[in-house]
Amino acid sequence: MPPRSKLNVAILGHRFMGRAHSNAWHQVSRFFDCPFEPVLKLACGSDASSLAAFAGRWGWEETETDWRKVVERKDIDVIDIALPTFLHAEVAIAAAQAGKHIFCEKPFAMNLAEAERMLSAARAAGIVHYLNHNYRRCPSVMLAKQLIGQGRLGKIRQWRGAYLQSWLVDPDQPADWKLRKASAGAGPLWDLGSHAIDLAQFLAGDITRLVCHAKQFINQRPLASSPGTLGAVDVECAANLMFEFGEDGIGTIETTRYATGRENHHTFEVYGDLGALSWDLEDMNRLQFFDGSDEPSSRGFRNILVTDPTHQYAKNWWPPGHIIGYEHSFVHAVADFLSAIADPASGTLRPDFHDGVRITRVLEASLRSADSGTWENVN
Amino acid sequence: MPPRSKLNVAILGHRFMGRAHSNAWHQVSRFFDCPFEPVLKLACGSDASSLAAFAGRWGWEETETDWRKVVERKDIDVIDIALPTFLHAEVAIAAAQAGKHIFCEKPFAMNLAEAERMLSAARAAGIVHYLNHNYRRCPSVMLAKQLIGQGRLGKIRQWRGAYLQSWLVDPDQPADWKLRKASAGAGPLWDLGSHAIDLAQFLAGDITRLVCHAKQFINQRPLASSPGTLGAVDVECAANLMFEFGEDGIGTIETTRYATGRENHHTFEVYGDLGALSWDLEDMNRLQFFDGSDEPSSRGFRNILVTDPTHQYAKNWWPPGHIIGYEHSFVHAVADFLSAIADPASGTLRPDFHDGVRITRVLEASLRSADSGTWENVN
Amino acid sequence: MPPRSKLNVAILGHRFMGRAHSNAWHQVSRFFDCPFEPVLKLACGSDASSLAAFAGRWGWEETETDWRKVVERKDIDVIDIALPTFLHAEVAIAAAQAGKHIFCEKPFAMNLAEAERMLSAARAAGIVHYLNHNYRRCPSVMLAKQLIGQGRLGKIRQWRGAYLQSWLVDPDQPADWKLRKASAGAGPLWDLGSHAIDLAQFLAGDITRLVCHAKQFINQRPLASSPGTLGAVDVECAANLMFEFGEDGIGTIETTRYATGRENHHTFEVYGDLGALSWDLEDMNRLQFFDGSDEPSSRGFRNILVTDPTHQYAKNWWPPGHIIGYEHSFVHAVADFLSAIADPASGTLRPDFHDGVRITRVLEASLRSADSGTWENVN
Amino acid sequence: MPPRSKLNVAILGHRFMGRAHSNAWHQVSRFFDCPFEPVLKLACGSDASSLAAFAGRWGWEETETDWRKVVERKDIDVIDIALPTFLHAEVAIAAAQAGKHIFCEKPFAMNLAEAERMLSAARAAGIVHYLNHNYRRCPSVMLAKQLIGQGRLGKIRQWRGAYLQSWLVDPDQPADWKLRKASAGAGPLWDLGSHAIDLAQFLAGDITRLVCHAKQFINQRPLASSPGTLGAVDVECAANLMFEFGEDGIGTIETTRYATGRENHHTFEVYGDLGALSWDLEDMNRLQFFDGSDEPSSRGFRNILVTDPTHQYAKNWWPPGHIIGYEHSFVHAVADFLSAIADPASGTLRPDFHDGVRITRVLEASLRSADSGTWENVN
Repeated sequence: MPPRSKLNVAILGHRFMGRAHSNAWHQVSRFFDCPFEPVLKLACGSDASSLAAFAGRWGWEETETDWRKVVERKDIDVIDIALPTFLHAEVAIAAAQAGKHIFCEKPFAMNLAEAERMLSAARAAGIVHYLNHNYRRCPSVMLAKQLIGQGRLGKIRQWRGAYLQSWLVDPDQPADWKLRKASAGAGPLWDLGSHAIDLAQFLAGDITRLVCHAKQFINQRPLASSPGTLGAVDVECAANLMFEFGEDGIGTIETTRYATGRENHHTFEVYGDLGALSWDLEDMNRLQFFDGSDEPSSRGFRNILVTDPTHQYAKNWWPPGHIIGYEHSFVHAVADFLSAIADPASGTLRPDFHDGVRITRVLEASLRSADSGTWENVN
Repeated sequence: MPPRSKLNVAILGHRFMGRAHSNAWHQVSRFFDCPFEPVLKLACGSDASSLAAFAGRWGWEETETDWRKVVERKDIDVIDIALPTFLHAEVAIAAAQAGKHIFCEKPFAMNLAEAERMLSAARAAGIVHYLNHNYRRCPSVMLAKQLIGQGRLGKIRQWRGAYLQSWLVDPDQPADWKLRKASAGAGPLWDLGSHAIDLAQFLAGDITRLVCHAKQFINQRPLASSPGTLGAVDVECAANLMFEFGEDGIGTIETTRYATGRENHHTFEVYGDLGALSWDLEDMNRLQFFDGSDEPSSRGFRNILVTDPTHQYAKNWWPPGHIIGYEHSFVHAVADFLSAIADPASGTLRPDFHDGVRITRVLEASLRSADSGTWENVN
Repeated sequence: MPPRSKLNVAILGHRFMGRAHSNAWHQVSRFFDCPFEPVLKLACGSDASSLAAFAGRWGWEETETDWRKVVERKDIDVIDIALPTFLHAEVAIAAAQAGKHIFCEKPFAMNLAEAERMLSAARAAGIVHYLNHNYRRCPSVMLAKQLIGQGRLGKIRQWRGAYLQSWLVDPDQPADWKLRKASAGAGPLWDLGSHAIDLAQFLAGDITRLVCHAKQFINQRPLASSPGTLGAVDVECAANLMFEFGEDGIGTIETTRYATGRENHHTFEVYGDLGALSWDLEDMNRLQFFDGSDEPSSRGFRNILVTDPTHQYAKNWWPPGHIIGYEHSFVHAVADFLSAIADPASGTLRPDFHDGVRITRVLEASLRSADSGTWENVN
Repeated sequence: MPPRSKLNVAILGHRFMGRAHSNAWHQVSRFFDCPFEPVLKLACGSDASSLAAFAGRWGWEETETDWRKVVERKDIDVIDIALPTFLHAEVAIAAAQAGKHIFCEKPFAMNLAEAERMLSAARAAGIVHYLNHNYRRCPSVMLAKQLIGQGRLGKIRQWRGAYLQSWLVDPDQPADWKLRKASAGAGPLWDLGSHAIDLAQFLAGDITRLVCHAKQFINQRPLASSPGTLGAVDVECAANLMFEFGEDGIGTIETTRYATGRENHHTFEVYGDLGALSWDLEDMNRLQFFDGSDEPSSRGFRNILVTDPTHQYAKNWWPPGHIIGYEHSFVHAVADFLSAIADPASGTLRPDFHDGVRITRVLEASLRSADSGTWENVN
């Protein structure tokens, strides 16, 4: 292996996503042959003390509490945005204008206006931009994409998606930034739905029209910052969608944080006239595939353990049958991001800010529909 | 066992449902202690030759091709309606007026007007009336009802139902009565959706508002009667619902005959604030139950094999672990129907024509919504 | 359907198996086109009162408490032996000598000497003889047989079988005839193991050598006849086998009545060099099939719902996706038994008393091995 | 976090296990609060060129091709043995004599004599010694241990274990060191069986007597070093065990590399008189638990997703429902190994070389039994 160029990364945010991204920056060079060696150069966060602990644990060389200074630093090549949603646009636009490549956590933006500004800035700057809907990069989802691309499902007619969690079933669970419109944009529709919509559009086609049903079960909760005080929850608790996609497809997506017994139950079923697939994030090393061309007497959903060397990303890890976990999809994302920087003309890195705009259009149409009670076009 | 009174049954219809009902009339006395002995007295159908074969095979003592004569016969106690939907109302009303108890196959009626006339006639006559949404009587569904009744799920918030079949994926599958509005009322919404709606309302509460998405994938098919000719399919191919139920619940139901790989995939998940259930007709001897009061470290969906003597109907069949099949739910229905005739005041036989009206209201609201593109109240 | 000859059946035994057999004699003519119409002529049991109730419920025309008189009756064509094991040989031999066709419940005999006498008598008489290892006739097992016959598994190398129940976990469960050597021959090895051995030999090849591990956990229990008194349990509580089969195969079978949580968990996995199968009686409408010739990236165990018209017996019941239950396998057995009587030269009815002898050889070798602690040949 | 002492690690071996161990040494400090900071100091292997690539990729500071020099280096604190089995004893004994703590890959040793020498050396040196049966450290297996420790299974009576792989189904798969007695000790019995035996003894109790059935299906294969030449395979292809354990338990274990369709199918079921567990490595984030004390009508195997903060190791990774993979068990092992070095008196680090001896006794008894054809005591 010849010496590789180094690429200096700065991360903004150091909570759950900060950890998952940091891990990916470390792991990628061990398991993938990357065109660049990422250097964990700079970590940025508002709380200096917890930031220091984070940087120490994860090996970020320096820290900084002012994100503007991060963006301005000449030695930084990549800005990794692992911040709450309401901070994405301002940071991403500044980073793009400073010519940094951007690895951006989802949900993309607070609204379509922001999303479009983010995309414009990224395009104008000619940077590499990536939006981290990481579940695309489960080997099982890549296999789904491949089977669909080969025509194994035929004409796709129906999509049945869900992203069900349960962490808000307890009424004493405090309200954090994810439960306020001003910081999160919306509730599970935004947080979970953006993932579910991304998979639907990635695999089955763009959503064109929809109707949305949003529901609030509990509208105030203890404040995280002051547990004795109740604060308003102004985002929906659950949201369901019915939609049309592609040329002739129909589908549904359900999102909730109130599904007792479901922790991270992100699932889809997709039906074509020749075959079908079924997937569950909690069992992410598997894909269920019904091949309608198998003889009628011996066909059935094939329970595929997607850990074979023939499966994308799988050969970089362990021998067949040795499963991978949640964070591996982030490593795959970083590996592909580095490749795209090496060969930006390839234009193959997806989802990117274009997808971010497209998903935000769907999300905005959903909110409109939840208000209007009618079908809305995704324009 | 003292000698029991005999009850003379006449059946109308001798196709799929004719077989399933006939079997139930035979089996019920073997496996259940019934207050009456049903006598398979008279089978009615329009085609004399196939009717004779049917009657011979299933032990119906006599045959008749004119349903009006059946209803008029003094010696008939029970009219079993196993006919296509468009024939239900006329027959049921005449039967009720003649004072016969009615065991009626689903879907109940072609429209709400018919449904209400059927109910009025039944009530006026004071007969026992039963609508055969048989899946309620799977022991697993009865267990679901029991657990919900005990409060084990707490406040029910979300319902996720589906009834997915695939028999129309093949474009050469001919159009039969189920594919014409004039005979079937509607497509899978009516045929499969009525079952799914019945389970939702039985277990979770009445549906109050909804929005429906109906879709046609293939709008003409070979005629069953003349395979070389294409005829119009004027019912929907798939239909999805979003709805509100009970005091504070939201839900979805999806129905289709185009779900490649799914043959009789009738499922529900129901989430309360204390527990959750999941069920699949193709695995109808099982119920998945998440008990949120189990300690956090060792809780998970319990895979309950519902074949224990403690489970309703199960002790009448075989020892624990010996599963039952599709047709057993019909036997349970007949057993309960006979008990209701013996004790009509108990008023416990459900679903009945009241439920038929209620379900038809939901179905009609669905069709209205599919046309209007907006939410409709179930009034 | 032209009028069919009637065939008079006499049943001996009226407990669990008496019910399952009676049901089959009734159901077979409804669902199958049989060459004979079975007449439920005569039921025999030692207790006149419970026998009368049984006969009344199941429609047996007459009753008799002396089995010898049953066998001697000229008008009886078929003797159905649904008795405890220790009564099989005497009855079967007398029945054969009287020229009756025999439908015999398993386990076949108390020992090899009995088994061989039963076979000799049957062969000498030229009657049709059937041994009811009914699980062969699950459509899923027939599909397994068919796939193996087509070479889809290639050379079969390994068998992994189990029949696990839990009804003796409770130490207060009383000792009945199944817990005494004198009436049952042995414990789960005989009762459950005979089924498991039958499936192994049916699908994978004859067992040639084995070693057996038998274990007693509880050696006395309340007597069923006198609950206050403890009686000895002199049969094993669990028994495991390792064996060789066919030309080059190895396998295991485990049987127990102490597997907490397992009610009727009869399973097998079979591995060939081209494919594999997995099956579970509690999910008997399904077969898992791994086809090694599927492309590596999209292969996996196919979860086959064996309810298609292409599947043996399935088209006689309901449309695809409508499952059948435990007792259906008895109906299939009776259907094939009637066909064999019509065409005895076909010689296709299996398992028969030859299989009974073969299975008993394996069982006897198992008991010898459990005593000797070494490998024993099945001679 | 105060600055921690550094601990210099030297690894021997750089293939599959070299990668898995290196990853663990890196990851442990990110996800666990360890008393030491492990330094990846020195990597040792016989092939200088591939060693250099390995060290470069995994961040080992130095390389060395002579293992004796590694052991002699004063600055090394930990020897990590990731070598083929036949090299374990010599290296481990020398390392112990040099006072190094040892993290040793399985299978432990070539035979009992070696195993005992390894243990003696380790005890004499007073070092921390760990044997890497890593599957103990799946959170699901730790939960199994905890439930058993709480008495939730009651008296354990039966164990049903298997470790089934399929990588030798292809007759052209070349023979590597794992297929020769001289380097591997034995076949799957040693490689896979040691893991399966470890779990059985960890959870259910020590194995005291056994009978083993070893089988060869293919006895020559292309040589890895010279693909045109066939070389002898002198280890078994599959091996089954029946055994007794603890006070009153019986069990089985099956191991094979010829189970078409199974890639890493390591499973166990364990039955006590109060409860039962079922586990599968390919689904290692889950444990199935049957609690016999749940009310009869609503009990069933609980499908526990073992990703809750209450589950050992789980809180160090991601929120509930976000699964982990194969390599995480190595990270857990390293974390516990570091804790044991900090507090060697705690004596809680298991499995260690004592377990290695105990497992090797079982393995040797198995080989004796495979030869003798009779039961052998584990002495």
